[in-house]
Amino acid sequence: MNSNYKVLKFSSDNSKEVNDQISIEEPLQIILKYKNKASWTENTISITMRTPGDDEDLVRGFLFNERVIEKIEYIENIKLSGEQVGQYKIKNKIIVTINNSENIDIDKIKRNFLTNSSCGVCGKTSLDSLEIIKRDEIIKSLPKIHHEIIMKSTDMLRRNQSEFSKTGGIHASGLFNSSGKIIAVKEDVGRHNALDKLIGYVLNNKLLDNSSQFLTCSGRLNFDLVQKALMANIGVLIGVGAPTSLAIDLANKFDMTLVGFVKEDSFNIYSNKERIII
Amino acid sequence: MNSNYKVLKFSSDNSKEVNDQISIEEPLQIILKYKNKASWTENTISITMRTPGDDEDLVRGFLFNERVIEKIEYIENIKLSGEQVGQYKIKNKIIVTINNSENIDIDKIKRNFLTNSSCGVCGKTSLDSLEIIKRDEIIKSLPKIHHEIIMKSTDMLRRNQSEFSKTGGIHASGLFNSSGKIIAVKEDVGRHNALDKLIGYVLNNKLLDNSSQFLTCSGRLNFDLVQKALMANIGVLIGVGAPTSLAIDLANKFDMTLVGFVKEDSFNIYSNKERIII
Repeated sequence: MNSNYKVLKFSSDNSKEVNDQISIEEPLQIILKYKNKASWTENTISITMRTPGDDEDLVRGFLFNERVIEKIEYIENIKLSGEQVGQYKIKNKIIVTINNSENIDIDKIKRNFLTNSSCGVCGKTSLDSLEIIKRDEIIKSLPKIHHEIIMKSTDMLRRNQSEFSKTGGIHASGLFNSSGKIIAVKEDVGRHNALDKLIGYVLNNKLLDNSSQFLTCSGRLNFDLVQKALMANIGVLIGVGAPTSLAIDLANKFDMTLVGFVKEDSFNIYSNKERIII
Repeated sequence: MNSNYKVLKFSSDNSKEVNDQISIEEPLQIILKYKNKASWTENTISITMRTPGDDEDLVRGFLFNERVIEKIEYIENIKLSGEQVGQYKIKNKIIVTINNSENIDIDKIKRNFLTNSSCGVCGKTSLDSLEIIKRDEIIKSLPKIHHEIIMKSTDMLRRNQSEFSKTGGIHASGLFNSSGKIIAVKEDVGRHNALDKLIGYVLNNKLLDNSSQFLTCSGRLNFDLVQKALMANIGVLIGVGAPTSLAIDLANKFDMTLVGFVKEDSFNIYSNKERIII
């Protein structure tokens, strides 16, 4: 599933605004329904960011792979339901009815689904609560960044990764100032961890100055990275890879400039292009 | 942080066993310690898979980015502690003491950290509980796969992705039989979701035959993907990208063949190489 977004495709010899197809990312709330001592119980056991489509299979696979149920035959019914979001209906809530409560280990669910990862979405028990994730203030003094600095930042990020050249398997986040100087780079196998490490480091060392700095991350740009960058009030987020629909929506909503697909002499601007000098 | 692993580097004109550096992936248990009505309370609020190093910054950034605390100055103390795992000491437990319980929103913690994502690790409240994730049985009738089939499977995966060519930003998981025929391919912005969709689909349509099938995934191979493949009792997991240390450790422990860095005429075998015909 994908959707059309307006994108400014910059390249050194030719820049143009086009409609581009973007992979959709939406939260899915998975609710387990089962009989508990003669009465029906409903528990939200997960909110996962996913591309809509095959949602019933997603939930079957998730419940089986996490051994919430031992066999998918224990699922009596799966019901995907929708809610009105803006102009269109989005089906982001799925209720799974288990045929017999003896077929699920309720203690295991309580034990295993009571904390969460640091992925930034997990733990929001309803779709509405995603709305609480917002930046403190909109940055008024925005950094303006020259296009050459953007393209150089991904190169510099890689050259400053001590681990990538050795293993080829680690993500990085880097903070740069608008003249292209590196403030700090952190690495981790998890993209969101690399960004948490970076923000933790620059806050602790009082190096964060969001009126003149921007963020460059390896890999793709999803909801999670945009949300974390917003929480640190950073106005420009650059990614080597593709953004998701939700990343662009959030960037637009909270006045962030989002840049993706950075190559040697080109990149795409997905929101608030006025911060980039081209 | 990385570690040395023995790897069989296959290429069509020359194969050799070498020591290769692999990015380390380890679970970190984040425990929040605060005064609650005059007595000290400790809550595990997250278990995240991360590369060890900069753990204090990771936790500072995580607590700030998730707005568990409004300011990192509210952290009085961070203590990383270790436990003996096999021959070496691993520091995978971190206790964060908050200076004043008025500085954390306990209700928010309870509300936001009570469920989890489908990332496969989240929700395990102690490091020991990772041990409960194991396959039901070791597959005795193993698929043997010709090296050409492996290299073709990544090509076929991409050609069967309906979304990737349009957006450049979506992951895929595919199930193949040992003669290289595609059983099914599923896509999602999240790697673990693509695999959950695939397993849910093949289980529901009774297409899974783990005595003759293998799995190929886009992107990197981390703990999460290996664990989900193990739960479906699949013996061979192929990835386009790099594996983590924990992915290899799990594959070795549960007798899975793990193949990574698949290119046009080369790939790396990280465990149980006897299943690959080279």
